[in-house]
Amino acid sequence: MTQPANPIKPTSKIPLSSNFTPKTFLKLHPLTLPAKPKTTLSFKAHSSPPSDRTQALISILCTIPDWADHIKERGMRQKRTLYDHEKWVQHRSSLRHWRHFMSSLSSRVILSLVPPVITFTSFAAIITGYNYAVSADWLPGFFPVLRGPSLPYQLTAPALALLLVFRTEASYSRFEEGRKAWTKVIAGTNDLARQVLAGVEASGKNALLKKALLQYIMAFPVALKCHVLYGSDVTQDLQGFLEVDDLAIVLNSKHPPSCIIEFISQSLQLLKVEESRRNMLESKISCFHEGIGVCEQLMGNPIPLSYTRLTSRFLVLWHLTLPIILWDDCHWIVIPATFISAASLFCIEEVGVLIEEPFPVLALDELCKQVYNNIQEAIATDKIIQARLAAKLRSHSKEHSPNGRPNS
Amino acid sequence: MTQPANPIKPTSKIPLSSNFTPKTFLKLHPLTLPAKPKTTLSFKAHSSPPSDRTQALISILCTIPDWADHIKERGMRQKRTLYDHEKWVQHRSSLRHWRHFMSSLSSRVILSLVPPVITFTSFAAIITGYNYAVSADWLPGFFPVLRGPSLPYQLTAPALALLLVFRTEASYSRFEEGRKAWTKVIAGTNDLARQVLAGVEASGKNALLKKALLQYIMAFPVALKCHVLYGSDVTQDLQGFLEVDDLAIVLNSKHPPSCIIEFISQSLQLLKVEESRRNMLESKISCFHEGIGVCEQLMGNPIPLSYTRLTSRFLVLWHLTLPIILWDDCHWIVIPATFISAASLFCIEEVGVLIEEPFPVLALDELCKQVYNNIQEAIATDKIIQARLAAKLRSHSKEHSPNGRPNS
Amino acid sequence: MTQPANPIKPTSKIPLSSNFTPKTFLKLHPLTLPAKPKTTLSFKAHSSPPSDRTQALISILCTIPDWADHIKERGMRQKRTLYDHEKWVQHRSSLRHWRHFMSSLSSRVILSLVPPVITFTSFAAIITGYNYAVSADWLPGFFPVLRGPSLPYQLTAPALALLLVFRTEASYSRFEEGRKAWTKVIAGTNDLARQVLAGVEASGKNALLKKALLQYIMAFPVALKCHVLYGSDVTQDLQGFLEVDDLAIVLNSKHPPSCIIEFISQSLQLLKVEESRRNMLESKISCFHEGIGVCEQLMGNPIPLSYTRLTSRFLVLWHLTLPIILWDDCHWIVIPATFISAASLFCIEEVGVLIEEPFPVLALDELCKQVYNNIQEAIATDKIIQARLAAKLRSHSKEHSPNGRPNS
Amino acid sequence: MTQPANPIKPTSKIPLSSNFTPKTFLKLHPLTLPAKPKTTLSFKAHSSPPSDRTQALISILCTIPDWADHIKERGMRQKRTLYDHEKWVQHRSSLRHWRHFMSSLSSRVILSLVPPVITFTSFAAIITGYNYAVSADWLPGFFPVLRGPSLPYQLTAPALALLLVFRTEASYSRFEEGRKAWTKVIAGTNDLARQVLAGVEASGKNALLKKALLQYIMAFPVALKCHVLYGSDVTQDLQGFLEVDDLAIVLNSKHPPSCIIEFISQSLQLLKVEESRRNMLESKISCFHEGIGVCEQLMGNPIPLSYTRLTSRFLVLWHLTLPIILWDDCHWIVIPATFISAASLFCIEEVGVLIEEPFPVLALDELCKQVYNNIQEAIATDKIIQARLAAKLRSHSKEHSPNGRPNS
Amino acid sequence: MTQPANPIKPTSKIPLSSNFTPKTFLKLHPLTLPAKPKTTLSFKAHSSPPSDRTQALISILCTIPDWADHIKERGMRQKRTLYDHEKWVQHRSSLRHWRHFMSSLSSRVILSLVPPVITFTSFAAIITGYNYAVSADWLPGFFPVLRGPSLPYQLTAPALALLLVFRTEASYSRFEEGRKAWTKVIAGTNDLARQVLAGVEASGKNALLKKALLQYIMAFPVALKCHVLYGSDVTQDLQGFLEVDDLAIVLNSKHPPSCIIEFISQSLQLLKVEESRRNMLESKISCFHEGIGVCEQLMGNPIPLSYTRLTSRFLVLWHLTLPIILWDDCHWIVIPATFISAASLFCIEEVGVLIEEPFPVLALDELCKQVYNNIQEAIATDKIIQARLAAKLRSHSKEHSPNGRPNS
Repeated sequence: MTQPANPIKPTSKIPLSSNFTPKTFLKLHPLTLPAKPKTTLSFKAHSSPPSDRTQALISILCTIPDWADHIKERGMRQKRTLYDHEKWVQHRSSLRHWRHFMSSLSSRVILSLVPPVITFTSFAAIITGYNYAVSADWLPGFFPVLRGPSLPYQLTAPALALLLVFRTEASYSRFEEGRKAWTKVIAGTNDLARQVLAGVEASGKNALLKKALLQYIMAFPVALKCHVLYGSDVTQDLQGFLEVDDLAIVLNSKHPPSCIIEFISQSLQLLKVEESRRNMLESKISCFHEGIGVCEQLMGNPIPLSYTRLTSRFLVLWHLTLPIILWDDCHWIVIPATFISAASLFCIEEVGVLIEEPFPVLALDELCKQVYNNIQEAIATDKIIQARLAAKLRSHSKEHSPNGRPNS
Repeated sequence: MTQPANPIKPTSKIPLSSNFTPKTFLKLHPLTLPAKPKTTLSFKAHSSPPSDRTQALISILCTIPDWADHIKERGMRQKRTLYDHEKWVQHRSSLRHWRHFMSSLSSRVILSLVPPVITFTSFAAIITGYNYAVSADWLPGFFPVLRGPSLPYQLTAPALALLLVFRTEASYSRFEEGRKAWTKVIAGTNDLARQVLAGVEASGKNALLKKALLQYIMAFPVALKCHVLYGSDVTQDLQGFLEVDDLAIVLNSKHPPSCIIEFISQSLQLLKVEESRRNMLESKISCFHEGIGVCEQLMGNPIPLSYTRLTSRFLVLWHLTLPIILWDDCHWIVIPATFISAASLFCIEEVGVLIEEPFPVLALDELCKQVYNNIQEAIATDKIIQARLAAKLRSHSKEHSPNGRPNS
Repeated sequence: MTQPANPIKPTSKIPLSSNFTPKTFLKLHPLTLPAKPKTTLSFKAHSSPPSDRTQALISILCTIPDWADHIKERGMRQKRTLYDHEKWVQHRSSLRHWRHFMSSLSSRVILSLVPPVITFTSFAAIITGYNYAVSADWLPGFFPVLRGPSLPYQLTAPALALLLVFRTEASYSRFEEGRKAWTKVIAGTNDLARQVLAGVEASGKNALLKKALLQYIMAFPVALKCHVLYGSDVTQDLQGFLEVDDLAIVLNSKHPPSCIIEFISQSLQLLKVEESRRNMLESKISCFHEGIGVCEQLMGNPIPLSYTRLTSRFLVLWHLTLPIILWDDCHWIVIPATFISAASLFCIEEVGVLIEEPFPVLALDELCKQVYNNIQEAIATDKIIQARLAAKLRSHSKEHSPNGRPNS
Repeated sequence: MTQPANPIKPTSKIPLSSNFTPKTFLKLHPLTLPAKPKTTLSFKAHSSPPSDRTQALISILCTIPDWADHIKERGMRQKRTLYDHEKWVQHRSSLRHWRHFMSSLSSRVILSLVPPVITFTSFAAIITGYNYAVSADWLPGFFPVLRGPSLPYQLTAPALALLLVFRTEASYSRFEEGRKAWTKVIAGTNDLARQVLAGVEASGKNALLKKALLQYIMAFPVALKCHVLYGSDVTQDLQGFLEVDDLAIVLNSKHPPSCIIEFISQSLQLLKVEESRRNMLESKISCFHEGIGVCEQLMGNPIPLSYTRLTSRFLVLWHLTLPIILWDDCHWIVIPATFISAASLFCIEEVGVLIEEPFPVLALDELCKQVYNNIQEAIATDKIIQARLAAKLRSHSKEHSPNGRPNS
Repeated sequence: MTQPANPIKPTSKIPLSSNFTPKTFLKLHPLTLPAKPKTTLSFKAHSSPPSDRTQALISILCTIPDWADHIKERGMRQKRTLYDHEKWVQHRSSLRHWRHFMSSLSSRVILSLVPPVITFTSFAAIITGYNYAVSADWLPGFFPVLRGPSLPYQLTAPALALLLVFRTEASYSRFEEGRKAWTKVIAGTNDLARQVLAGVEASGKNALLKKALLQYIMAFPVALKCHVLYGSDVTQDLQGFLEVDDLAIVLNSKHPPSCIIEFISQSLQLLKVEESRRNMLESKISCFHEGIGVCEQLMGNPIPLSYTRLTSRFLVLWHLTLPIILWDDCHWIVIPATFISAASLFCIEEVGVLIEEPFPVLALDELCKQVYNNIQEAIATDKIIQARLAAKLRSHSKEHSPNGRPNS
């Protein structure tokens, strides 16, 4: 829970050396990546054998991706807000296309696409330049024009499109799964609080336990939120909810949400209620465990990596050969065409990857606040409603039994 | 719950100034939009630094979108009706295509498409005009004809189509989720009412509580409906269902549906029934909480915005370049072709956005009325059925025990 | 429940008048359709202002759609049969393609496609005729050949195909939902009957109640079936299941299935069983309410109309412009090509609309009969099994206690 | 349950008569097929009015489809085996493509495709022959070459592909539903057996009932299997599971699985256990009813026939016109092209139809055997575990109470 | 449970003999494959009749597939790790495309594609060579150039793409099913442990049973993991969890997970708790049975083989004819085009087959470890929380009853 704020730091800026040796670069990766996947991005530590210049070059080449990742991760940390009626009106307003188009350049998704799109557009530019050079006879005669027929591309285009969009769909269904898990957690929290409020008489030690129980119940979604959101400050978030001693125990445990469940569970055992009611209350807790389970599984098990890699490799292969395929039809238009194609298709993939871990995209902070408000409200109206019902019964018994006898 | 009837008011009509400066306009948006997303549509307030003329221009340019939004939002408020057998016959009648085609021009969906379709058709007309001018040598020789090969478009067309249709599918599955949540709420309401009716003896204070309980149960879907529908008048809608004092408490609370659940819950505690039956009744309430949960999550969490924006931007980019791509094949037909393409594809996107918030599309008003009628009917037949069963038992015991002794 | 057998009657045959004025016709619809959607098909009543000739024309033009609808609705009323093993063998036999192709002309789905297909084929024929006339210089020179490039169509074809097929899929998933709801109702009915049979001792008044309960349980799916099927005769269908007095009460109620549930519910209250068993039996009834809920929601809420209309309009627009697009490639083959395209694509849409209301497509009649048979069978075997188990226990106690003492 | 082993018998081999009259053949079908759909394949009985030669011809033409169906149905009866780890290794081995390709000619799916593929390939050959004849001027000049533009086909190809693959997906989701229903039945069986084993004390008559109960529980999946598999011998399969007298009752009932459920249900009533435990055991039986319900619904309600027929007709229409469309591009290659197209697309449809009834494709026999083994194993280890736990407790109490007194 | 570590051993290296006889090879397979599907890959044992040379050839030809399978199976055995926050950051980093592309050559998925891709590329090379030879008149005139029109391929390409991607989707939904089943098992384990911890008083023999129960509960997911993972060492994995005598019983049983469930079940019977609580605990075990059921069904029933084979055969047929179709457009580029097409499409299929059995792809080992840690943590905090709550109650009663009397 105490990860560094952002593990992606731009590597130190060593002066630029121009003699780029693609071979070294290509050889470098197989060495570093499979060996220590956790620190993939800190090339420096592993590439000491290659010359300093290569190091410098890599750190320069990594500047753009690092910058893009930095922006992306900062965006992931931003708090989402829940939609209300007015936002929906705006969401479907006719000007939305204009708004979306205008905000393209400040969009984090699009900024994080800069590295691949620049790469493939540059590659297309190089191929185009080379082809023009060959066509203009600036190069010796044995250099061939890089061209290719488009038929194989037309035949595989639907497969690529389907793969991309299905990959995105799979991510979206993970998003939905996360959303539904939280729906259940929130509904369960509200329901448990209601049952405790209405079903437990607040006499003797029950009064204290009831109050404590409601605190624990309100704290649970907050603890779960901190558990699933990267870089959240569990101490600060839980402060308002729990007493200091309880908080200390929760923060010491390795798994705060489970610890709070135990608090709830133990308090329930101490309550003085009928056994059948206690069982009903206990059975509600099971849905908290399920909530934790779904969240942890969504976080722990991404879409099978082979699937993700297949999509990524297919995209890369496609765009590396696209300029060659388009040459005959497009000539210099190869460059904007590759740009548009890369921007569109990588953007679909990017969105798929972004919503694959759904929790940063959901407005969990606001959800927790909402639960808190709801339960506070319920506590507040509890007395009023009790009084109202009592008044009703009293007036009724007066009306119907003027002589003081019950009218059953 | 007391939002203004329609927050999108056409901005004041300042006289038209013709010196349009696209640069200012483009610069304007990044300033206003990200800063105050809530008031995006009131350009005027934020654009005081640019000249008054720009303001005027913007307010003129916004006339059409504002008008379209106005029509759309008015349509969203219209009450939907539930289908019955006769509507289904009409729904699948052979004339439906004719009917749908004829009503195109009065369709709110289509009217709300007017702004983007006009924009892109005008843009296509401008490109076409320019190209004709260049072809006819009306412009200096260094102006190029804007043309492009169609191959890149053919390769990415399936991806765009899939993205659009999947986006619509995702919206549709939200609609289904909303529909199913309401199915459960309605079935739960009916079932709870039935259990209270049949399972609670109406003696002593139970009689009063039973009556109150049924009122609360009938009021719950109405309160939930008002909670999820924009601009609904909760006071008026609940008036018929609750007594004045109850109503006051409900209207004072921040979350009327939860407040009504509390009323139900507290009344259940006061009922004189066996503990196991009380628990069964209580467990029904949990499904109300789930219903609230699903509705609030559907409202609070739209389809990830990155996904929505991707679709919108892909569409805009596609239609901005389409006239260039089609020029070689189509010449002046570029204009109707762009029109048809924009109308079709933006319409798919529009439908997807419209059903993304499913509640205005569902006939919630009628559903609530139906529940009310059902429960009223159940109360009415309750006595009759009891009488009938009693008569049956009596006639039976007479038949089988002519000598007056039970025949067990 | 007493709708007329078929609300779509061919309008009276007024003698044909040939001076067709498309303008009047086009103006007519916006007047009649939005105003009184319930009586869309009876043009006559509303079109009195236009001349009698127009009336006559309309009634003639409507002959074919009316005939098609008549056939379709008659088909919807036909009772479906459940598949058995032999039907499955036939279903997958190699000759099925032949069978399906041969029965095309008697297929109701295909007959109900006649109106749109004829319309668009005629339209294609007119365009073709006009184009031939222009090409052959039979018309003055300023009449242009109607032709267009196919590229825009190739780019939007995948979107149309996806939209159509997804629309059909959405209908199919409604069909599945209906099927699953009925699966649950049937399983619940069987299960409740079994629990009543096995778990309730038939002594004293219980004997009568048990018998009545089983009747009500068997009557429930029948009542639900009549509730969801258009034009079903609830009186006749329920006659065999309920006693005359019960039947009268059920038929008088506005919602027969709910009324039967109340009968079941009240009878359960009168039964002499342990409280926990009564609760178990009661909880089964909740799934009946859910069944009613799902059925009513499926009937009341179609696929969002904006989605349905979008598909229909896209199809119409596509086929109106198709002849123009195909002219260059196809000349007179435009006519069969339009015919095949219209037949295929409208057929997909038609199937989607037909299965959107799933109940007429499901074999509900047979399902109800099956439940009845199952429960009758269960009642019959009940005694036999009891006797068998008793015999078993007796023989066992003899075996194990030769000296007459129990061996516990 | 006593259907003939295989209702599809090759009709008697009447000597071949060569004067083929397509007219008669075409007229014949509408007569026979709709009238008696159950005996579609025995043409002979109904076609007595047409001449004997036609009969002979039909029986000859049906030889191939009959042979194909015979092979297919024989294949459907073959018992499937459950996959184990080694089969999975083989399943994903690199040689699988080779294996699948090599076994093509012995594949039942492919053999059952022979009739349509031969038909359409012959048809393509005839068209090609005719076209060559016309091109070579072997026919009088007024015979036109049958050719057509490919554009309409390119526009509708995605719709056909989507329809086919979605139809297959719908079948696959039925397969999944069947698989999941059986998963639940098997898990329920195991769980019920465990609860009976562990929770019921085997004293007095309970001992006998417990043994009988376990027998009935083990018999249930077998009876359900026989109920859903065509041509299974219920007498033989149940023999090992039930005592002779029980078996007689089960076999006499019309619905063996329900009958066994009644046996279980009645035995539970006779058991001496606490009421709450009996209720828990009873509630498990509900999932058996659900299992029966899902299986019967899957069998009784196929994918809507209109959908299935649409796919089949679309395919036939497509392949009948394909040779004409391909002529310009392909000439004699029309024949292999039609062959490959028909083989591929009809194969997709065939697979969809084959898995539409999922039970013959699932390894139900092995599943039942597995359940039997599991329960036998559980009975065997039951005593051992009891002994082990008792020993543990004893050793514990010794350890902790050296002075012989319990340490509670 | 004691399968050999890897059944795919490269067959012995017999010296290469060059006279390849395709006939023998083709004849060979139908003999070996259907007869003994379990040992398909050990050609040697069955091919003794054909000459030794053929044997040698086969063993050589099988070297590459055997090597590919060896790598693949070794990869399947590797333990997966659960994703944490940092891995997600890396997962969505901009450099991922580079990383995926660079690691292509070391990817096991890609290496296992080597056999089919090499085969089809070689085949394309042979066709290309032959065509060049014919074009250059190196062969007698009657050898035709192998060429074909692309139209039939363009028409069936969407069907192939859809089939492939839907097949992969079906596999992915099996992966999801497996993931969700494990989510439930893990949540159930945690929940059961919590209920035992909080709800069972540790006095007398309960103390021992409670400890034993927690052991069994922690052992259950481990036993299930070993049951579903090929080649896992159940003895070693369970060693830490169970006492020696318990372990011996579990290892002796044929179905360790069921055996552990029986241990849990029997222990629950011996516990001294209220009946309603025991029932609640028992009902949790049902979800373990469901977990086993889902896992075993996923393992036992693959995607219908007819579907899998259809995809594979369609792919093979497509790539065998692709070089002929591409010849006119591509000439020598046929070879790289076939390579790219085969690599892309077979890779989609390969991924589909790899994730069809989801368990090796899920990080089950880490999940089990996590459960173990969670329960250990829960045991540890149990006392602390009890103490804390007791302290709270004490301080409360002091505060509120200074005079020593309770304030109820």
